[in-house]
Amino acid sequence: MDEEQTAAWWGRRAWALLSAVRARAPLVQCITNLVSMDIAANALLAAGASPAMLHCLREVPDFTPRCDAVYVNVGTLSEDWLPSMRAAASAGRPWVLDPVAAAASEFRMEACLSLLALRPAVVRGNASEILALASRSAAASSTFKGVDSSHDSGDALQAAKALAQSTGAVIAVSGAVDYITDGEQVAGAGNGVALMQKITATGCAVTALITAFVAVEPSDALVAAACALAVFGLAGEIGMESAKGPASLRMHLIDALYCLDEQTVTSRVKISLQS
Amino acid sequence: MDEEQTAAWWGRRAWALLSAVRARAPLVQCITNLVSMDIAANALLAAGASPAMLHCLREVPDFTPRCDAVYVNVGTLSEDWLPSMRAAASAGRPWVLDPVAAAASEFRMEACLSLLALRPAVVRGNASEILALASRSAAASSTFKGVDSSHDSGDALQAAKALAQSTGAVIAVSGAVDYITDGEQVAGAGNGVALMQKITATGCAVTALITAFVAVEPSDALVAAACALAVFGLAGEIGMESAKGPASLRMHLIDALYCLDEQTVTSRVKISLQS
Amino acid sequence: MDEEQTAAWWGRRAWALLSAVRARAPLVQCITNLVSMDIAANALLAAGASPAMLHCLREVPDFTPRCDAVYVNVGTLSEDWLPSMRAAASAGRPWVLDPVAAAASEFRMEACLSLLALRPAVVRGNASEILALASRSAAASSTFKGVDSSHDSGDALQAAKALAQSTGAVIAVSGAVDYITDGEQVAGAGNGVALMQKITATGCAVTALITAFVAVEPSDALVAAACALAVFGLAGEIGMESAKGPASLRMHLIDALYCLDEQTVTSRVKISLQS
Repeated sequence: MDEEQTAAWWGRRAWALLSAVRARAPLVQCITNLVSMDIAANALLAAGASPAMLHCLREVPDFTPRCDAVYVNVGTLSEDWLPSMRAAASAGRPWVLDPVAAAASEFRMEACLSLLALRPAVVRGNASEILALASRSAAASSTFKGVDSSHDSGDALQAAKALAQSTGAVIAVSGAVDYITDGEQVAGAGNGVALMQKITATGCAVTALITAFVAVEPSDALVAAACALAVFGLAGEIGMESAKGPASLRMHLIDALYCLDEQTVTSRVKISLQS
Repeated sequence: MDEEQTAAWWGRRAWALLSAVRARAPLVQCITNLVSMDIAANALLAAGASPAMLHCLREVPDFTPRCDAVYVNVGTLSEDWLPSMRAAASAGRPWVLDPVAAAASEFRMEACLSLLALRPAVVRGNASEILALASRSAAASSTFKGVDSSHDSGDALQAAKALAQSTGAVIAVSGAVDYITDGEQVAGAGNGVALMQKITATGCAVTALITAFVAVEPSDALVAAACALAVFGLAGEIGMESAKGPASLRMHLIDALYCLDEQTVTSRVKISLQS
Repeated sequence: MDEEQTAAWWGRRAWALLSAVRARAPLVQCITNLVSMDIAANALLAAGASPAMLHCLREVPDFTPRCDAVYVNVGTLSEDWLPSMRAAASAGRPWVLDPVAAAASEFRMEACLSLLALRPAVVRGNASEILALASRSAAASSTFKGVDSSHDSGDALQAAKALAQSTGAVIAVSGAVDYITDGEQVAGAGNGVALMQKITATGCAVTALITAFVAVEPSDALVAAACALAVFGLAGEIGMESAKGPASLRMHLIDALYCLDEQTVTSRVKISLQS
């Protein structure tokens, strides 16, 4: 395929996956941080999924097997929530990890590494988080040595590839362009606007959306993650047309996510395979 | 009274109760789920009540007796919060239960049943939740046998009546039309718009509003619950006139709740007694 | 300086501090209540700071020393969070306390008094909270006797001065006019609109903003607190120009905080030293 055909293919894939989320309303259990609960749940609802914020360890055996996918986010990690995260991640459903601020403490890094060992389908973080994980992950660090202080998502690509190869997960690195890799292939997703970084928990919300896309396309997590990142970024672009600051952007982004139509998605999603 | 007179009576009652909430600013302790805290507190404030989100067991003996009413919601139930819920529900104040996802796990169902035994003034849930509770509640299940898979609020009415009779609580079943019953009488509240279901925790927020209405009308929980449901739905209808999606609906709904005036409430509230 | 010169001086100080927050993006650890997490994080981001909502005791030794300032808020206090609050407050960083509903219970009052002993740079509360703390703080109560039932911020000024003298903290009392005192000097900050009280956690959000201002001006907490209160109130005034109720005010306030420019801040900040 030439470049134009490739772009059109990704646009159709993104629309197909968003349509599948809307049609099937996958049940997504979220064990996520306290800051992100509202925006993550609202982003999932706007996209057509069914969020369920349950974090009690005693409920995992009954509830998690009924879910289509599981989202784990360590943003406000605490000792009492970690066993629930591990149990939900081990329940046999496809699951996605957001290793927020992985390097904030040794406790958090070890929690993230222990979760990584439970074979997430996708890990999405910013460049710093992916670099930190790759440096500490024993298997990954054997093929990845350098930690660059500038930490943009391109710099982290080498780390992401090493981490993908060592864990078997698709690794997504957010940035001006998001990179998504399974260790071999690399997709770049270029939608989004800078002001989204001034809204708390947008990263957490897009990881929730990735989980919903993985729920309807568990067999191709790279495509699911790339399409979710592009769709969320596109909603941000559309929201930005009406926004006067970060709070109105947040509102317009969720509205736009709910209103996305085929023409908009297929023509404006910017995903490409990197060489 | 004929139908028109009945409608007018309900409109005046809804306005009288909303006015009482505004005038008396009842103190409502909320032990609610982590997703709903923001919208529940903001809905209470917009209606004129004083929300207090306190969930620490050690504070219940000092604080709960000073409250006008208590709101308990099990949405993000955990083992450490349940004793606080039980203690606050036992503190001698009128209280309201939202049994979110009652059937999600055996732990949650048992928690809900143990809370039901503490004599809530009102229980509000969707059809699935009320059906699940009625099926499991020993006393209610002796008069209620069938669980229908379609689960709209009309189907759940039989379950709600049985549950009301066995628990002594007013049971409210949310749906396209909300049904509210004390086991004998049934009121139907028809305000609201479908898009409200795409905003997380609107159900939790309306149960918070029911609690505020019960606080100013503890002697008639059926009227309080029906009026709160209609007023919240009406705010949604007004919000919908300006909304472009679920996030802007959320904002306009809260604004509309704050701005409701006598003319609007008395003319647009849709409540009727069912035969 | 005459009155006009004083006003101009404060306007320039407020702009200088807001500019410093934007330029330096201070890392502010927030151990805050569950209701306020979203608005506190978004207010910090809109002002240019970097919020980090971490509350796990095991992370404090690794993470807190890297922060520029720490924000502790007891709104949804629980026994398991209090040790983290104490540890973060003891980590050697400037820190700010919001004693939400200090008198709600004996447990909470004792928690607040124990935190006060850890030398916060600033304590911000409403009149009732500051009066309650001053009455119970042994050292402060020796110079402050009366608790007035009317509880506006002017009435609480005597209590605030006594509390400032006994604790060494700057005490800020929110009200129609906010008073900020180090026990000797008193500044009054007059920006803001009444409708802000109908948005949950605006008080918590402004205390978060005070923490960010203290982070860039730790040597003059009185100036930092007064400027943060005025800047937040000014954002509320600008937001009010577009608001139709409390929910749209919340959005426009955050947008306005993000968009504040030098001309607006220097000409509209209302701070004065009291005689």
